[in-house]
Amino acid sequence: MNKNQEHLLRQITDTIEPSLTAHNIRANGKSISRLSTKNINIIAKKNGTGLDIIIQPNTKNEIVHIPVLIDESGIEECVYNDFYIGEYADVQIIAGCGIHNDGTLASRHDGIHTFHVGKNARVKYMEKHYGDGQGHGKRNMNPKTVIEIEKNGFMEMETIQMQGIDSTKRSTTAKLAENATLIVKEKILTQGDQTAETDFDVNLCGENCSTNLISRSVAKNASRQIFRAKMQGNNKCYGHTECDAILMDQADISAIPEIAAHHLEANLVHEAVIGKIAGEQLIKLMTLGLSEKEAEEQIIHGFLK
Amino acid sequence: MNKNQEHLLRQITDTIEPSLTAHNIRANGKSISRLSTKNINIIAKKNGTGLDIIIQPNTKNEIVHIPVLIDESGIEECVYNDFYIGEYADVQIIAGCGIHNDGTLASRHDGIHTFHVGKNARVKYMEKHYGDGQGHGKRNMNPKTVIEIEKNGFMEMETIQMQGIDSTKRSTTAKLAENATLIVKEKILTQGDQTAETDFDVNLCGENCSTNLISRSVAKNASRQIFRAKMQGNNKCYGHTECDAILMDQADISAIPEIAAHHLEANLVHEAVIGKIAGEQLIKLMTLGLSEKEAEEQIIHGFLK
Repeated sequence: MNKNQEHLLRQITDTIEPSLTAHNIRANGKSISRLSTKNINIIAKKNGTGLDIIIQPNTKNEIVHIPVLIDESGIEECVYNDFYIGEYADVQIIAGCGIHNDGTLASRHDGIHTFHVGKNARVKYMEKHYGDGQGHGKRNMNPKTVIEIEKNGFMEMETIQMQGIDSTKRSTTAKLAENATLIVKEKILTQGDQTAETDFDVNLCGENCSTNLISRSVAKNASRQIFRAKMQGNNKCYGHTECDAILMDQADISAIPEIAAHHLEANLVHEAVIGKIAGEQLIKLMTLGLSEKEAEEQIIHGFLK
Repeated sequence: MNKNQEHLLRQITDTIEPSLTAHNIRANGKSISRLSTKNINIIAKKNGTGLDIIIQPNTKNEIVHIPVLIDESGIEECVYNDFYIGEYADVQIIAGCGIHNDGTLASRHDGIHTFHVGKNARVKYMEKHYGDGQGHGKRNMNPKTVIEIEKNGFMEMETIQMQGIDSTKRSTTAKLAENATLIVKEKILTQGDQTAETDFDVNLCGENCSTNLISRSVAKNASRQIFRAKMQGNNKCYGHTECDAILMDQADISAIPEIAAHHLEANLVHEAVIGKIAGEQLIKLMTLGLSEKEAEEQIIHGFLK
């Protein structure tokens, strides 16, 4: 792993060293390190399009890392990873992507991740997207997540994009069985002329299933964001979606939630707020000695923390 | 005016007798009574498609009634009424539609109302839709409202549909200039296999303009409702939209608001809740001696009041 790749890896993974856990590190289109454990089997698909990650039932407190690193300008790839999480497992999956682009060609990673969350299983899934580099070549990512949660299953997904991605189309679809729970926390910061689109489509199918989608975003400069969230209540269920967005400079943000109740006991709520940083907050911090810019940074940092 | 028409008129107008104010009463496709006043001129369009209602500047505390009554089965009509509200006027406009259908043919009224609200003018606009009759012929209405509010203008629109309309597509578009205000209050109750669609599209163009869209609805039996509300902030402005819906029986409700901020000082908020009547509320009323049905009716009545 070269210096750029090491830097990308530090940006997108948590503090835990991937090499100590089940992992697959993909760099410039190839696997450069892979480890399966007794309970977690990571196998390359025969057609070469991605990985199957098979987590045995009852696997507890294990972590899977599958970071993707790109530091060659011009790499454009589409990878299919399928996660099978066995019954009563309780695991954490960390799957970020970092692109360093010093060249003139666009680099792009499209990760299509499918999660089969078994009965009574619990998964925490984190996905961090990061870009840097001196070139004019674009850094693009289009993560697609397909989730199926069986009876009593639980999944929490955290998706973070704070820097350096020129264009993202983030699509997440989910289908929940009886008593299943899905929590999604999205944090996005765009700047320059970046664009970020988010699309959620959650189907609440099983009795007493529930979802909570929370999006917090900041758009600076001339960046553009679109947030779409569709929740369909097909049974006795609870769904909540919330989009809080801070607008700065000449940025542009749209929020388009859709809630559809197809069952008497579907209980659906959404809320969204788009606005600039409150003047009082800025003034308060400036009276404490911060410049306007510092005060703004501190407010944004707190908002996206 | 026959007995059916008199009954329809009582249902859709306020307590004030239309014949005492500026008015045009349309029954089965023809004007059966019309009155202009010194300040309010009601003129049939030369091409026969509807009316021009011209309200002089500074007209205060006057009311215009333009009810539409249909009690012949099979009448299907599209009427264009244009309202010109002069500067500093302060008036009330009541424009409901009632359909009584004892026959087998569909009756339909599509009213396309355009409002030019002058500088500093204030308008309160009420639109009540009502249907009854023993026939199998459908009672359909597709009201379309186009609103332009000039600097410092104010419009409050109240639209009510409580009974007897099989299908409605309600479209309201608005464009607001500097300091203009638009308030919309919608109340809808559907039952049987009725369908009601609402579409708002408000363009907040002038500095410090604002809008508040409030929809309350109840869907019973197998009825279906769709609520769409788009607010676009193109200047320093404030927009709020809120959709509260009660679901009963096998009904189906979707809420699809869209807020888009194209300006740093656009402040946009939306919220929506779809759910059934809270169990505690029902039980509380039932312990006071009401049957479940009576308790439901009382809650709905309070909700839509």
